[in-house]
Amino acid sequence: MTTTDTPLEPWQWPEEQWRGIVGHVRAGRSYRPASWPGGKRCAVALSFDSDHETNELREGGKSIGRLSWGQYGNRVGVPRILKLLARYDVKATFYVPAVAALLYEDEQRRVVAEGHEIGIHGWIHELNSVLPYEAERDLMFRSTDTLERITGVRPVGLRTPSWDFSPSTLKIETELGLQYDSSLMADEDCYELMLDGQGTGIVELPVEWVRDDAVYFMMHRMQSLRPYTPPADVLDIFRRDFDAAYEDGGIFQLTMHPHIITQRSRIWLLEELIRHAKSKDVWFATHAEVAAYAKANAV
Amino acid sequence: MTTTDTPLEPWQWPEEQWRGIVGHVRAGRSYRPASWPGGKRCAVALSFDSDHETNELREGGKSIGRLSWGQYGNRVGVPRILKLLARYDVKATFYVPAVAALLYEDEQRRVVAEGHEIGIHGWIHELNSVLPYEAERDLMFRSTDTLERITGVRPVGLRTPSWDFSPSTLKIETELGLQYDSSLMADEDCYELMLDGQGTGIVELPVEWVRDDAVYFMMHRMQSLRPYTPPADVLDIFRRDFDAAYEDGGIFQLTMHPHIITQRSRIWLLEELIRHAKSKDVWFATHAEVAAYAKANAV
Amino acid sequence: MTTTDTPLEPWQWPEEQWRGIVGHVRAGRSYRPASWPGGKRCAVALSFDSDHETNELREGGKSIGRLSWGQYGNRVGVPRILKLLARYDVKATFYVPAVAALLYEDEQRRVVAEGHEIGIHGWIHELNSVLPYEAERDLMFRSTDTLERITGVRPVGLRTPSWDFSPSTLKIETELGLQYDSSLMADEDCYELMLDGQGTGIVELPVEWVRDDAVYFMMHRMQSLRPYTPPADVLDIFRRDFDAAYEDGGIFQLTMHPHIITQRSRIWLLEELIRHAKSKDVWFATHAEVAAYAKANAV
Amino acid sequence: MTTTDTPLEPWQWPEEQWRGIVGHVRAGRSYRPASWPGGKRCAVALSFDSDHETNELREGGKSIGRLSWGQYGNRVGVPRILKLLARYDVKATFYVPAVAALLYEDEQRRVVAEGHEIGIHGWIHELNSVLPYEAERDLMFRSTDTLERITGVRPVGLRTPSWDFSPSTLKIETELGLQYDSSLMADEDCYELMLDGQGTGIVELPVEWVRDDAVYFMMHRMQSLRPYTPPADVLDIFRRDFDAAYEDGGIFQLTMHPHIITQRSRIWLLEELIRHAKSKDVWFATHAEVAAYAKANAV
Repeated sequence: MTTTDTPLEPWQWPEEQWRGIVGHVRAGRSYRPASWPGGKRCAVALSFDSDHETNELREGGKSIGRLSWGQYGNRVGVPRILKLLARYDVKATFYVPAVAALLYEDEQRRVVAEGHEIGIHGWIHELNSVLPYEAERDLMFRSTDTLERITGVRPVGLRTPSWDFSPSTLKIETELGLQYDSSLMADEDCYELMLDGQGTGIVELPVEWVRDDAVYFMMHRMQSLRPYTPPADVLDIFRRDFDAAYEDGGIFQLTMHPHIITQRSRIWLLEELIRHAKSKDVWFATHAEVAAYAKANAV
Repeated sequence: MTTTDTPLEPWQWPEEQWRGIVGHVRAGRSYRPASWPGGKRCAVALSFDSDHETNELREGGKSIGRLSWGQYGNRVGVPRILKLLARYDVKATFYVPAVAALLYEDEQRRVVAEGHEIGIHGWIHELNSVLPYEAERDLMFRSTDTLERITGVRPVGLRTPSWDFSPSTLKIETELGLQYDSSLMADEDCYELMLDGQGTGIVELPVEWVRDDAVYFMMHRMQSLRPYTPPADVLDIFRRDFDAAYEDGGIFQLTMHPHIITQRSRIWLLEELIRHAKSKDVWFATHAEVAAYAKANAV
Repeated sequence: MTTTDTPLEPWQWPEEQWRGIVGHVRAGRSYRPASWPGGKRCAVALSFDSDHETNELREGGKSIGRLSWGQYGNRVGVPRILKLLARYDVKATFYVPAVAALLYEDEQRRVVAEGHEIGIHGWIHELNSVLPYEAERDLMFRSTDTLERITGVRPVGLRTPSWDFSPSTLKIETELGLQYDSSLMADEDCYELMLDGQGTGIVELPVEWVRDDAVYFMMHRMQSLRPYTPPADVLDIFRRDFDAAYEDGGIFQLTMHPHIITQRSRIWLLEELIRHAKSKDVWFATHAEVAAYAKANAV
Repeated sequence: MTTTDTPLEPWQWPEEQWRGIVGHVRAGRSYRPASWPGGKRCAVALSFDSDHETNELREGGKSIGRLSWGQYGNRVGVPRILKLLARYDVKATFYVPAVAALLYEDEQRRVVAEGHEIGIHGWIHELNSVLPYEAERDLMFRSTDTLERITGVRPVGLRTPSWDFSPSTLKIETELGLQYDSSLMADEDCYELMLDGQGTGIVELPVEWVRDDAVYFMMHRMQSLRPYTPPADVLDIFRRDFDAAYEDGGIFQLTMHPHIITQRSRIWLLEELIRHAKSKDVWFATHAEVAAYAKANAV
């Protein structure tokens, strides 16, 4: 191959280039247990990304209307979620950017006091893939320390903001000594994350856009995003996903956002979903618990 | 932190910067009454943004097709709304840009004569956040004076066009001596607007995209916006929001647009919603009435 | 007002500027008849925009896939429509860009031979609003002559391509001596088009995006347009529009596209709609017939 | 026509220019058989585009999250599809970019071993229309050779990546000696592809966006694409298409993607569709089989 000054187009890439890109971060062995604790048939892992004002701060913080959504998340959203989880005695995981945690320290302490997990979600919901390694590492360590200082518990898992996993993210996760990540989509079961072909021991608890409330309900005036899908249909999608996960003996994992799912026209669907799952033989658990159990009991 | 010539990225901001942005305009104390006038359980606040031709004028007025939507709003839309409101004896609030009011002075007088409220909605539906303070202030004062001159009633509330609340908007609202604003989303109940940590006494009657007809039904050929959500599903969303507000003893607030909601395939959903609400123990009122009552009777 | 070198923003415009824009093309008197021919209660005006390959030619003709949609329109679409219209003995109007008519001359002759109307739809589906007056005028006259030469009938009405009505369009329509236009949206009933405050005698038979199949079903890979709305819901929208038009004694007008509405998963909804309308007391007619009757019998 | 330095706008094109563009690649004679093998009434041609990581590699391979979708396609998607097809004894066609085949050679061998067809789908899912002829030709030949080397079977058909058919594609298909293409949309029945007015003998087995799962379900964070249409409604669309194809004695052709259709909330709709089709008098076959039969038995 001749060296040129202009970058090659993907269709011109030599094999080592595309193999290198594909092989950098990879799903390795499956961490799938024969059954879940107490012989339960299915694990249910609910999560809430408490982004609050960082949703707008990360874009420069220019819209006061969108900032008010952040306060709604703290004022209405998280309390409504905690009340619902308590009513059904369900534990869940909250991923909180450090800046959101600093704005609402009491909220984080209440979340932990009620038995839920708090995981890392970046500093100010920044996109990792545009950061140099040093900056991403620094923000990630500071975020972890900040959450620990506020809640008294050191986080063991990371959800990258916007599921934007950079080429450095996995290396930083190993440096931080994390137990799990929840940002990627290579499987429905947990799996080991591989870095350039080497196992890291870090568990991936996979997410999927199809199981994210923002996908159907997000509104962004300037980005042509609209909440076009009716809530009843979103419930149908989530319920079908749960039913198939249950049939399969797997994990039903869900990502939600306080200012989105708690709207009065939507919160009922989460309650309906929890009631439906509770009528079956399932184990509700935090993402950390699911990841740890899956790894320890993989068959 | 070293001073640089290039602006910092949000993830580089010092704490005082993001705290300053978040704390500038803020929800303060809740204005939530124990019950509504006459012991009613729920307040219903319907609003219509009579933008008419300003919807296109604000973008330069180049599309004659979109301008014809404006005339439809006056010729078909507002009369159809007034007829429906009269049939069910319901009062509502119309937010009208000054230019739209000047184009259709009789319409505004009829709206007021039939007992409805007219609120401020900018001069020509401009985006406040791109204006200097002086321009925004001048337009807001002129808009208020214009509405008063036409209708004989001085408006007491503002809905920012496109809910685009600038860093100067709240200060100007205090200078105008307004009683309430209806552009922000930090709660479902009314609350006091705080400016840099100080109470202003101005009531926010919160809006939400989820309760706006344009979100589901707006068509813009050049912006990839399409009315993808079926009207029957929009009714389901609105009805669920109302039912939960009723259950909660709160406010059901709705934002509509004359040229959107009065289409023959949609107006039925507003009638159905009004009939549904009227079958319950509710108080229909203008935004000004709801805001005033909420503030005076907050518990 | 001081003269400046930079154009004024809309919120800086003097009153004569926005009044001039709004008043240039305008709905005047209503052309609403007391009833329809034979005492029928409602007029049904179906239309099909036979754009065929001009849909892609107008954008430079680069996509062979999108060009093949054009041939589908001729090969499958129009014959399927004609067969359906014949089965129910319904007349309709086809708007055909001159280039599409030149590509498929036999199709146009068959459409006319089967009793339908052909109207003007531009030369190559160009956007009028970016053309200088001379070019728009030349294309419009040539398009009219071309359609007349092919079909033997001189068109009497125009639908602007993409409903893109330029500041010159109405003047050119008067120069062409047209009887009606069907591109604007200021009412649900027919009305007289006013040019700078003067009546033109040209009838507008109004369209609306809500009654256009492309709005719900168009796919454009590069423009984020997707056919997100299910056909059964589109039928519900159209049927509600018809039912209200019937109740109101007005016009049910519909815009469709051969390569969109005739897909096997969609054509049934048009048949269903026709059957529904035929079960009522309605008058199916071409746009030219509806416009002429409305004008002649306006009350 | 005067020669100018700036390119002409489409509305300025001389007739030979637009006729040349339209006539370059064209549907010729219809290849429609009187009935299908064994006298079956309808042919069912299911296809899966196994793009895997090329979906992101072709855009530069920057998103690790989107790359993980590729691995999901291999790890979960294709096995789930093969299991479903085996359960119902249905043969289908998989279109595989060469790079995806090289990443997952075993997958391709299993697909072929289970009786399915593998067709060409570009090298790295490149857009053909931006390539010079030589590059497109080289990639197409190398892709064909690669698939043959891996599977032992030389492909006889091509689906252009993203259905992006370049002005050179058909010529290259003749040079490759292909039997059929499946990228264009000029009919519902098979037809002969014409190159500049000359028959090529190559069969087109038409696709349509309306019968593509990605249209309704694709998620792309940066392109405003969201899976807004509920799976139950997508099933309704596909079933109506099948029912009409069956009624018509034609072909029901469907395009799907392993990482999209196999999501737990969606795979049921494919099973439902297969069960529905199997309850009728249909012939399930690969695209190659359908194309060959249609050509040989055209009436």
